[in-house]
Amino acid sequence: MDLLKQKIRQEGRVLSDQVLKVDSFLNHQIDPQLMVEIGKEFSRKINNEYQNSGDAHPKRVTKILTIESSGIPAALTTGLELGVQVIFARKKKSLTMTDENYVSQVYSFTKQETNDITVSKKFISAQDHVYIIDDFLAHGAAALGLIDIVQQAGASIAGIGIIIEKAFQEGGQKLRDLGYPVHSLARIKSLRQGNVEFIEEVRS
Amino acid sequence: MDLLKQKIRQEGRVLSDQVLKVDSFLNHQIDPQLMVEIGKEFSRKINNEYQNSGDAHPKRVTKILTIESSGIPAALTTGLELGVQVIFARKKKSLTMTDENYVSQVYSFTKQETNDITVSKKFISAQDHVYIIDDFLAHGAAALGLIDIVQQAGASIAGIGIIIEKAFQEGGQKLRDLGYPVHSLARIKSLRQGNVEFIEEVRS
Repeated sequence: MDLLKQKIRQEGRVLSDQVLKVDSFLNHQIDPQLMVEIGKEFSRKINNEYQNSGDAHPKRVTKILTIESSGIPAALTTGLELGVQVIFARKKKSLTMTDENYVSQVYSFTKQETNDITVSKKFISAQDHVYIIDDFLAHGAAALGLIDIVQQAGASIAGIGIIIEKAFQEGGQKLRDLGYPVHSLARIKSLRQGNVEFIEEVRS
Repeated sequence: MDLLKQKIRQEGRVLSDQVLKVDSFLNHQIDPQLMVEIGKEFSRKINNEYQNSGDAHPKRVTKILTIESSGIPAALTTGLELGVQVIFARKKKSLTMTDENYVSQVYSFTKQETNDITVSKKFISAQDHVYIIDDFLAHGAAALGLIDIVQQAGASIAGIGIIIEKAFQEGGQKLRDLGYPVHSLARIKSLRQGNVEFIEEVRS
């Protein structure tokens, strides 16, 4: 997605060979118009999957699932585009979460801690076809936690939408090896020497 | 805001005299179309304040400020409507937050803990005119923490947009006594006996 790559080039800051900071438009300050474009792009990819599924009775996405907090804006704009509800998994159980929940564990490398992530059972059922969205894909921990929750619900997974994939880390490969469609809007090959190098891809 | 009140009546659950659960459309599952309408309503109120300010040189809102996570969807749709950037205060410092920050303390009554909330100094300056958005207003702790951050930046406050105000708690009165315009889209008078009773207001 060219607009996103341009933003990363202009405003991203490489803090180390592993860490790209994009807090001016993605995960602290948010650029609302960019988020609308990201929602449109994920929707386009979801519709492509649907049309090219080869399935006699392909399923439409019924829910968007993300995890608080940075996944929420893109999940919202994608849900708006598709006309479906958005769910964000909670990292900490609130006192008002009194219903039965799906729970999985996610280790955060940036925060160096393991969180339970929680989704109320009311909001995902076995009939749902769920599209997962997150801002970053690195080791794949968050995405695997969300996949686990969808599986606990007995629902199916339409695919995984990622804004920025650090393709030099193993998360993307893990998810593709599991057979899920992974739609990354920007794939970073390397952050070496303070430079952001993208994997250039054929448009799909 | 009638659409919101209708949603609260249909889907809200009164857990106690103090606690209203609206996790099916506001703070766990999110209704994207409702969020768009909420963004339009806040924008309308912001424009009303601007037009009726009585100031010879009234200021336009330059930033929307909220706090993760449940404030993000409405902040995003309001920012989109106004064409300004959205900032969400962080409740926990990430390892990538290496810049200088504004920090304030917020006690969460639902989670029974005090959090530092953090905003990078890069994103609010003394020239900004900031509109604060949050999902709930009860004791006012989150709003007061966000006000503190805007004041640390030397910026001005355009107003405070709240989706649901529990008007039987003291937060709304505190903020109005401080002189800020408070725009609550639904004001709840009481949750007694399992019923949601709204304060009916003249349209503005």
